[in-house]
Amino acid sequence: MSDKAVVLLSGGLDSATTLALAVAEGFECYCLSFNYGQRHSTEVEFAAKIADQLGAIEHRTANIDIGAFGGSALTDDAIDVPTDGIVDDEIPVTYVPARNTVFLSYGLGWAEVLGARVLFIGVNAVDYSGYPDCRPEFITAFEQLANLATKAGVEGQKFEVRTPLIHLTKQEIIQKGTQLDVDYAETVSCYQLSPAGEACGVCDSCRIRRAGFDAAGVTDPTRYQR
Amino acid sequence: MSDKAVVLLSGGLDSATTLALAVAEGFECYCLSFNYGQRHSTEVEFAAKIADQLGAIEHRTANIDIGAFGGSALTDDAIDVPTDGIVDDEIPVTYVPARNTVFLSYGLGWAEVLGARVLFIGVNAVDYSGYPDCRPEFITAFEQLANLATKAGVEGQKFEVRTPLIHLTKQEIIQKGTQLDVDYAETVSCYQLSPAGEACGVCDSCRIRRAGFDAAGVTDPTRYQR
Repeated sequence: MSDKAVVLLSGGLDSATTLALAVAEGFECYCLSFNYGQRHSTEVEFAAKIADQLGAIEHRTANIDIGAFGGSALTDDAIDVPTDGIVDDEIPVTYVPARNTVFLSYGLGWAEVLGARVLFIGVNAVDYSGYPDCRPEFITAFEQLANLATKAGVEGQKFEVRTPLIHLTKQEIIQKGTQLDVDYAETVSCYQLSPAGEACGVCDSCRIRRAGFDAAGVTDPTRYQR
Repeated sequence: MSDKAVVLLSGGLDSATTLALAVAEGFECYCLSFNYGQRHSTEVEFAAKIADQLGAIEHRTANIDIGAFGGSALTDDAIDVPTDGIVDDEIPVTYVPARNTVFLSYGLGWAEVLGARVLFIGVNAVDYSGYPDCRPEFITAFEQLANLATKAGVEGQKFEVRTPLIHLTKQEIIQKGTQLDVDYAETVSCYQLSPAGEACGVCDSCRIRRAGFDAAGVTDPTRYQR
């Protein structure tokens, strides 16, 4: 019998690759997406399709209110998404306060109900080094919290948060996913996707994606506006 | 200028007392309640009133989906709320998986946006020792996580989770709140409140509340069905 895992699936390139890796390792995957008032909420529709394509057991979407607090260009219309490139050593305005903490907490709750002890999250400390909640030390702290927060943890079972992409470049992620037949045409990275489903081509996320496909030598199936 | 604090306010006796203590310490209090599919969702309406009575700056309610995962008598209609007393050393079926982890994560997100570095939560390790996420070691682990999870934490600011009730008995909590003029008639503890607003009188939460008022020598303003 294979083990169950909860996989956080945004519908982006990274989380789709993470799901493919979890499935390839033999986990029964329960995928969790979030509607949190993000500008790129189309992601969630893609997530459902990807979960199905990659053989997940179940896919759920949780509606959550973190966007209501504002403070991020991804959820707050008053803050513009930057389109002029990444500034080194700065936390970008696209950072959503406590986002991965909230996402992992939900994942933990579902994992406990399912009897799963493994969570997968596609965080990456290389290309997104600006986000504090994508770093290995954050993940380790969350595992420690999970073991103290739960009935299962108190009973001596250990939760594990797996981050198979954490030290990979975008190029390496795309190469791994391509080997596992991830259909990247069904993934979204753009922070400001057009209603017609076209990526802007100029936000940080588009820039990183595009450069990743270039470096990987894989044809980028994304439709860019420019 | 006083400091800002985010206060998690369920509308129950403990969180109302916590808010009164935070206000008495001079904090500008931003109160946060959750709709999470709980049976006792009337709590949230009481929370708004209490926040106002006790002088909070703002009160928000976040709609969150943790009830969708099931696994608790508080959110899952298929599991009965126990009415025959508390069993020592067992985690009760009213435990909601990862609830306080999710609540504190939301609180952390809002705190970061507000520029608050203090969170208040009315957990209690004495009367509710069955819940793993009410223990001091859980709170400490959350503080460590918060400092790694956030922009403010990375920039060297420390988050603090204050739990002024954690080692108090229900009797002591009621005595403190009474000194601070908390109107306990406006708080709800019952896990299965009637549509008319009457407490059942027999769930664990009613039993603990009732015994607390008795021990405190304070008149219990709750309307019980039996």
